[in-house]
Amino acid sequence: MNNFTRSGILFVVSAPSGTGKTTLCSNVRQTPDLVYSVSCTTRPIRKGEKDGTDYYFLPRGEFEKRIKAGDMLEHADVYGHYYGTPKGPILEHLAAGRDVLLDIDVQGARQIRDSQDPSIRAALADIFIMPPDLGELRRRLEGRGTETAAQIDKRIDAANAEMADWKSYRYTILSSSMEEDLIKFRAIIRAERYLSRRLNLSHG
Amino acid sequence: MNNFTRSGILFVVSAPSGTGKTTLCSNVRQTPDLVYSVSCTTRPIRKGEKDGTDYYFLPRGEFEKRIKAGDMLEHADVYGHYYGTPKGPILEHLAAGRDVLLDIDVQGARQIRDSQDPSIRAALADIFIMPPDLGELRRRLEGRGTETAAQIDKRIDAANAEMADWKSYRYTILSSSMEEDLIKFRAIIRAERYLSRRLNLSHG
Repeated sequence: MNNFTRSGILFVVSAPSGTGKTTLCSNVRQTPDLVYSVSCTTRPIRKGEKDGTDYYFLPRGEFEKRIKAGDMLEHADVYGHYYGTPKGPILEHLAAGRDVLLDIDVQGARQIRDSQDPSIRAALADIFIMPPDLGELRRRLEGRGTETAAQIDKRIDAANAEMADWKSYRYTILSSSMEEDLIKFRAIIRAERYLSRRLNLSHG
Repeated sequence: MNNFTRSGILFVVSAPSGTGKTTLCSNVRQTPDLVYSVSCTTRPIRKGEKDGTDYYFLPRGEFEKRIKAGDMLEHADVYGHYYGTPKGPILEHLAAGRDVLLDIDVQGARQIRDSQDPSIRAALADIFIMPPDLGELRRRLEGRGTETAAQIDKRIDAANAEMADWKSYRYTILSSSMEEDLIKFRAIIRAERYLSRRLNLSHG
């Protein structure tokens, strides 16, 4: 009986704010055999968020200690707060053949692509969610109603800069409806699992 | 409005006989925006087959003339008959942004991978369908009842040799049920369409 074994895949998803990335990722999270990596942050916890589920909320000093110890796969300073991905759990998941989903910004994705760790490089599959256009992005942010006009302007500027990075990602999904985005996302997850370079044949 | 354009993808599928590849491909053929390339062959037409649909059935002399003219993307001599893929229509489809599906054996796939044509190289996405095991393959061939025991032995030997090539293909699907194989195949087709390197961004 032919059989395949493989090590885990590191799916990295980035998108400018307002493309519905967070909703998309929490839907993808339902996918069996996909581990959602919880990031660390120093920003204050928001209403409805849970420590250890949405983020690990860390004091600034503790976060900087972990950076120095090399425990962060990537980290970034966004709007004055640190965001980062703890490295240890990811490497453990990948070695055990579990696929990991990371939801991070373009700066973080760039750091992971530049990683010198061969197991990270081999595992990586990065996906960019492209907003349909910036006008639509503005409408979505305004509809969310959680930010001031100045904050929205700042996010639009950032989105514009982030969009320039799409070509660096292996995949790009042009965001349309949540359902369509999810179908495309799941197709990528599936297809990456059939890449021959990830597979080892075993008989028995 | 962000929009993407792209040139076509050349999907090449190979599998040892009896993995249900032909049924799989005729199911995939229903996929919208996928052009099925009709191969040329010098083998006699079988009952139920249609010239121009299943194959272009050519006399041996005509086939050899086309090889010499460089009109074949790949060709092989299998069990004393030529099989080959006419090149012109494929290049036209790819340039027009249409995705092409080729159903060819491992020798043909190897020739396409070795192609020096940059548009073929960039367009290629090759998929190997791995039989669950050779015992199962033998049962399927015997169940089909179209070949003698000696012919089946010959096919099993050929399948064994062909299976060794799976690592050279970008993707490998371990064949299970037709439904499962089709889901996996379609995921690959979708995901390849979101590869950033295939996409050109246009606004308007």
